[in-house]
Amino acid sequence: MDGAQVGALEREMDARRHLLSPAEEMAKLGSTSRPLLAYGEGIHVVGTNGRRLIDGPAGMWCTQIGYARREIADAMSEQALRLSYNSPWYTVNSPAAELSARIAAMTPGDLDRVFFTTGGSTAVDTALRFTEFFNNVLGRPLKKRIIVRKDGYHGSTSLTAACSGREGNWPNFDIRQDRIAFISSPNMRLAEGRSEAEFLDFLVDEFSSKLAELGPDTVAAFLAEPLQASGGVIIPPTGYHARIKAICEANDIVYISDEVVTAFGRCGEWFASEKVFGVVPDIITFAKGVTSGYVPLGGLAISERLLARVSGDNARGSSFTNGYTYTGHPVSCAAALANIKVIEGEGILEHVRDVSGYFAEALNSLSGLPLVADVRASGLVGCVECLADTERAVAGDLDRRLGARIDAICFDLGLIVRPIGHMCVLSPPLIITRAQIDEMVAILRQGILRAADELARGEIF
Amino acid sequence: MDGAQVGALEREMDARRHLLSPAEEMAKLGSTSRPLLAYGEGIHVVGTNGRRLIDGPAGMWCTQIGYARREIADAMSEQALRLSYNSPWYTVNSPAAELSARIAAMTPGDLDRVFFTTGGSTAVDTALRFTEFFNNVLGRPLKKRIIVRKDGYHGSTSLTAACSGREGNWPNFDIRQDRIAFISSPNMRLAEGRSEAEFLDFLVDEFSSKLAELGPDTVAAFLAEPLQASGGVIIPPTGYHARIKAICEANDIVYISDEVVTAFGRCGEWFASEKVFGVVPDIITFAKGVTSGYVPLGGLAISERLLARVSGDNARGSSFTNGYTYTGHPVSCAAALANIKVIEGEGILEHVRDVSGYFAEALNSLSGLPLVADVRASGLVGCVECLADTERAVAGDLDRRLGARIDAICFDLGLIVRPIGHMCVLSPPLIITRAQIDEMVAILRQGILRAADELARGEIF
Repeated sequence: MDGAQVGALEREMDARRHLLSPAEEMAKLGSTSRPLLAYGEGIHVVGTNGRRLIDGPAGMWCTQIGYARREIADAMSEQALRLSYNSPWYTVNSPAAELSARIAAMTPGDLDRVFFTTGGSTAVDTALRFTEFFNNVLGRPLKKRIIVRKDGYHGSTSLTAACSGREGNWPNFDIRQDRIAFISSPNMRLAEGRSEAEFLDFLVDEFSSKLAELGPDTVAAFLAEPLQASGGVIIPPTGYHARIKAICEANDIVYISDEVVTAFGRCGEWFASEKVFGVVPDIITFAKGVTSGYVPLGGLAISERLLARVSGDNARGSSFTNGYTYTGHPVSCAAALANIKVIEGEGILEHVRDVSGYFAEALNSLSGLPLVADVRASGLVGCVECLADTERAVAGDLDRRLGARIDAICFDLGLIVRPIGHMCVLSPPLIITRAQIDEMVAILRQGILRAADELARGEIF
Repeated sequence: MDGAQVGALEREMDARRHLLSPAEEMAKLGSTSRPLLAYGEGIHVVGTNGRRLIDGPAGMWCTQIGYARREIADAMSEQALRLSYNSPWYTVNSPAAELSARIAAMTPGDLDRVFFTTGGSTAVDTALRFTEFFNNVLGRPLKKRIIVRKDGYHGSTSLTAACSGREGNWPNFDIRQDRIAFISSPNMRLAEGRSEAEFLDFLVDEFSSKLAELGPDTVAAFLAEPLQASGGVIIPPTGYHARIKAICEANDIVYISDEVVTAFGRCGEWFASEKVFGVVPDIITFAKGVTSGYVPLGGLAISERLLARVSGDNARGSSFTNGYTYTGHPVSCAAALANIKVIEGEGILEHVRDVSGYFAEALNSLSGLPLVADVRASGLVGCVECLADTERAVAGDLDRRLGARIDAICFDLGLIVRPIGHMCVLSPPLIITRAQIDEMVAILRQGILRAADELARGEIF
């Protein structure tokens, strides 16, 4: 073994002995470690074992401009040498100020004021705390309930986890808060024979009924992703968000669009809410793509109309006593500005819009394969849903084992899939070329075909 | 105006128009912006107006090794070029693995496993979610209450804000959760004539009574800072933590030590719980100093004994479905490793232990001044409590105006104080020299004397 290999082994031992990781299977704690990555390059990551992999999930839906970009490394280093930190409680730094203005110009409507946090969870947590603050300042202490959706994902703080409707994350946590109410996922696979128009009516009616049941004066906010990302790339019926928003407006309910996944180019726009999904929210949350994952940063943009009701002459002596040590961190904000410059300079939004049709077609070419129950795509995020019995709407344990097997085969062939149970979700770095899309989908095709063979031979059960 | 001045003005306009900041006074939203900092250097920050200031609070208790350290800038840049991101859900990176081992070696007892988050709030949120998970896996769904203390501060997520006992942060937020119970701050100023030993007995008895009242089988965790930092550098009576810990042990209650402020050298040790405050906790949370504030990072170290009860053969099929996109971020962890290397290489822990007595003496030299009601210090964090009537124990509005005035005078003289109400807290970068301590305290002395004169002349009222 050479020095690098020894170092890698030591780091794997460190991880096995000393790390607790997200979604850790507790039975295996201490006996395994996850694969150690050595470096990244463009759309690829390379393991310490030399294995080169297309990064199908773009990290966690975040490495928009790809790995090893000197522009971002330089921006971080320069800012760290200039001003590595300032307290946002009593000072401000140039990158945070400039980034707030840049983001305000990108968001729809009058969402012109930005609060920075450390990631998506704290962005959503702050958005919900803002609505709490908003209604308390307005003297409506009972207007506090939050309506969310099954299969939504909004974070991992105590409150945002309780707003997340992915039931797989619930066991052994207390996902119960009186103020949170769930409605259906807008998933056409669960439409039970209804047409898209009928299903849309059902969903809107369900929201109205839930509102009537709870009492509109007790509901503060509706929180939704434009498309449910880790719920399985669930794209709602056209017009869904606008119709829900209209009901929110009529009942003075804050509409929060969680764009942690969809913002910064994933759907070919800086923000997807209005341009892709036809809704102008009251608050938009973001994270991930804002720095292409190079450094932690999240935040939210808030409507000036909303803020006007609790500021200036309407402030009633209030202070927004919410905030993080790393709010508006100068190095994070400098990385975000450099990231935006790269996206602009290389026309990456245009590129996404240009290749998204090609990407959707490539995924759809898998529709006829065995196991493939559904294919969905928007921008550069797509899902190939695989089921042992493609007629069923709901996955079981066998389907999840099938997903794990497809993932393992693709990993051997040079592609990270990171299936969400039985759903093969692809959300590659936004710089991916047509040829690389072909390569990625060809590997997934292999994975599905081989897993289908293994299933037919009784090797997966 | 030159280009830099025009740029600074533009950034101030950006901030005024587009930023919402922590603790924003909503009446002034849009009409003001906080002072814009241009750069940092050692223990100083410099405003865009050219004003050079000693950074008395070290940012937010975090810039341990000072500003403009090339070691950290280079480490971040190199890591960003090597591997800028990896998903902690299914891979691991070398800096996170190495850092987990380094931290495990620094923590007391068997706190040998580390979960990384994005800052202090998410560290404490995760620690509390871990205790929830722990008791659910153990089949004790009712063991969920959390005991916290008045004047404690633990973060700004919905849950951690609800655990924070600084009442100034409460208005217009719903700081009420049935599962959270408050006990007294261990503040000798509130001892009402008791000796330190008597006050300690009172505090321990109060904890026991609260436990009896709630029922030990309903209490999951005790959460406390070793010293209450933003509560005003409240140093508990000697033996306080160990005595509370003993009661926790007897009742199987998780003792969480929130070392977001005290860890990484503030008190002259990597972690202060055991070496300074004589307690070996079950969980320690950290953030801030771990990167000297150069990039967001937080985390917690958990006792192996605790983990053993819910892992391996005791896992009962559980997965710890908690985590952040930026958990174990490679750039953040690389910055932390470089920061630790600087602290070690320059003997900064030794330096803090060496100068802490000098620092305490310098602050104590202010004891005889008008307005000064109390002086407290530990390591390189201290508080000079100023009151118009030094015989009173509790501050009022006049005292807070006095604090603001002392701050304004010191700012003009070249020192950021960032008073917490009436309390002038100093927690400078750990590299501060004796001469710089003298300079810092001399400015604070001027600030207090001038404010006292203004008070005597009726100019503060």
